[in-house]
Amino acid sequence: MSPAVAAAPKCLVAVIGVGLVGTEFVNQILTHLPSFVKIVALSSSKTWLNSSNADLTPANWRSALSTSGIKPDLNTLLSQLSEKAKQGHKVVVVDNTSSDAVAALYPQFLKEGLNVITPNKRAFSADQSLYREIVESSQLSGARFLNESTVGAGLPVISTLKDLVATGDKVKKVEGVFSGTMSYIFNNFSTSQAGGPSFSSVVTIAREKGYTEPHPADDLNGADVARKVTILSRCIPALASGLPRGYKDVNTTSLVPSQLAEITSGDEFIARLPEFDNHFASMRKTAHDKQKVIRYVGVVDVDKGEMKASVENYPFDHPFATALGGSDNIFMFHTERYGARPLIVQGAGAGAAVTAMGVLSDLLKLL
Amino acid sequence: MSPAVAAAPKCLVAVIGVGLVGTEFVNQILTHLPSFVKIVALSSSKTWLNSSNADLTPANWRSALSTSGIKPDLNTLLSQLSEKAKQGHKVVVVDNTSSDAVAALYPQFLKEGLNVITPNKRAFSADQSLYREIVESSQLSGARFLNESTVGAGLPVISTLKDLVATGDKVKKVEGVFSGTMSYIFNNFSTSQAGGPSFSSVVTIAREKGYTEPHPADDLNGADVARKVTILSRCIPALASGLPRGYKDVNTTSLVPSQLAEITSGDEFIARLPEFDNHFASMRKTAHDKQKVIRYVGVVDVDKGEMKASVENYPFDHPFATALGGSDNIFMFHTERYGARPLIVQGAGAGAAVTAMGVLSDLLKLL
Repeated sequence: MSPAVAAAPKCLVAVIGVGLVGTEFVNQILTHLPSFVKIVALSSSKTWLNSSNADLTPANWRSALSTSGIKPDLNTLLSQLSEKAKQGHKVVVVDNTSSDAVAALYPQFLKEGLNVITPNKRAFSADQSLYREIVESSQLSGARFLNESTVGAGLPVISTLKDLVATGDKVKKVEGVFSGTMSYIFNNFSTSQAGGPSFSSVVTIAREKGYTEPHPADDLNGADVARKVTILSRCIPALASGLPRGYKDVNTTSLVPSQLAEITSGDEFIARLPEFDNHFASMRKTAHDKQKVIRYVGVVDVDKGEMKASVENYPFDHPFATALGGSDNIFMFHTERYGARPLIVQGAGAGAAVTAMGVLSDLLKLL
Repeated sequence: MSPAVAAAPKCLVAVIGVGLVGTEFVNQILTHLPSFVKIVALSSSKTWLNSSNADLTPANWRSALSTSGIKPDLNTLLSQLSEKAKQGHKVVVVDNTSSDAVAALYPQFLKEGLNVITPNKRAFSADQSLYREIVESSQLSGARFLNESTVGAGLPVISTLKDLVATGDKVKKVEGVFSGTMSYIFNNFSTSQAGGPSFSSVVTIAREKGYTEPHPADDLNGADVARKVTILSRCIPALASGLPRGYKDVNTTSLVPSQLAEITSGDEFIARLPEFDNHFASMRKTAHDKQKVIRYVGVVDVDKGEMKASVENYPFDHPFATALGGSDNIFMFHTERYGARPLIVQGAGAGAAVTAMGVLSDLLKLL
């Protein structure tokens, strides 16, 4: 690292959640960050490691955490970290969980001067009241919250949207394929070729590849897309006051057949999904007859004040039909300055490595 | 603006160059920036306005500048700004020219603690020695240089590349259509349809629309793409020490017929270009026979250590063939984490409004 960087004050990082993304994040930070950044706490759902004086490495941190013998306690963590912040350290809480309980603590963290970085969508897509408390706590203390990786993982989505807004461009519409799972399913189910595999077979393969949640209804209900629509809409001042109940207020199309809505077992859901293959095949044929493909998209239409997560049809030569593959996300920003041809960001929008990278990139911005 | 932001120290901005981009930038900054940001100097090629005590508005700045009666003097400006920096102000020099003379001063600006923001490609694509001096001066004083808009204008290109590198992803290749002019020409000249308009007619229309330089050879020689290849390669540590003579060391294919190389008049060049239409039509046919289109691309291949600005053929279903339109830029980042499907950024990569936005966005990052 350069001399100028090494002279910066100490930055202390507390990591909550060491699942797939958390593990990757801890490994990335221990491998790539300058020496003045230090992990002072690690917390899984079962154990907690106060590591202020430990020398963590990519090889030893997991066993150190699992053998700590201390139960996680977020309130004690909060008071310990506040103490560090009062001593003049820059302290960052990285929440790699998808927990509502941790998200509910963000206002407290921020009020105490602790910065928050997270890929956890909960706080930013739920009730307007929690979101407002987060913004106000941040303004009050000067501590910052960064959540780039809540939408599109490591892709520059939120930063691009915020830049457009901050520099005075007029954002007219943001639309795209915001869910890697939905992308994979429809890229395989609906193409410019007539016919194709059954809907249930595509979902089954997606599940086998680990692209869906254990219970595929958790993807097919559209809630994940609705959450991302909410998060993006809150970056646009003209819409920021909308959506009082967050993602539940987004006009959302569920692909879960109503007859299967009560099924709690993923296996049973998959076993019964073929009953509805004709329905999906008929949707596909209707689109194909009009030279269109089906995509599950998120739309934030600023001009119309419309926010939706829905199934739409796109012509064979539209970027959502031609440019997408695999489980890519794509984001189109229609703005006044970009005119008729939108700014586009595309690539993997899920996966531990790229999500952790988005979190780490936020941390670098904070430093 | 929020109370936290309003409490920040004063930021003083000196703007050099008020052509198309400069004018747009001054208007954007006067309209959209918080009150603690102040333009303290404006300089055109003919006059200079020391505006520390003036109250500039989008409506009055141009006449104030043109009637100042003072000749521009960069050395006096430098010493005045250094004084401000010593008084504890954050001072930013925004160079909106394409001048080598201004670019040569960046090391001095930086040494004096003045931050530099610019869409001017000169300093970052020329001799390695000037670039190295810029980096070292910045490290010495802590003043920063930001040049996002030198590549892709307002698109998040350099920031994305730097993020990938900083978070430890392994960048394997960056490739794309880096020139709006070249994009327009080949999107219209070479498509999946057989035949098409003559090369000279497409270039003539591009010139009439203002997409080319007054002398089209200044675009067709590939130097602009070679400069952008150089700038991107310098963001990748594995390549940073290469290219001692900058863009002149990039393997560059010129589309200027050697028989026309000495012509200095744009009109005469355009008048004689039809003599070479058969040559370009034959290139197009060769590509089309292989189900490919022609594109003029920049490539930074880290694995091969190869940097080039060249004419390449791409299959009809490649994003460079399907996704591009108008005068769009497209940037593909092939990295270890993104795997087989690259991260893509696409959109207008030229034009005053989006270039000025890139400059303003750098300024916001600095604040």
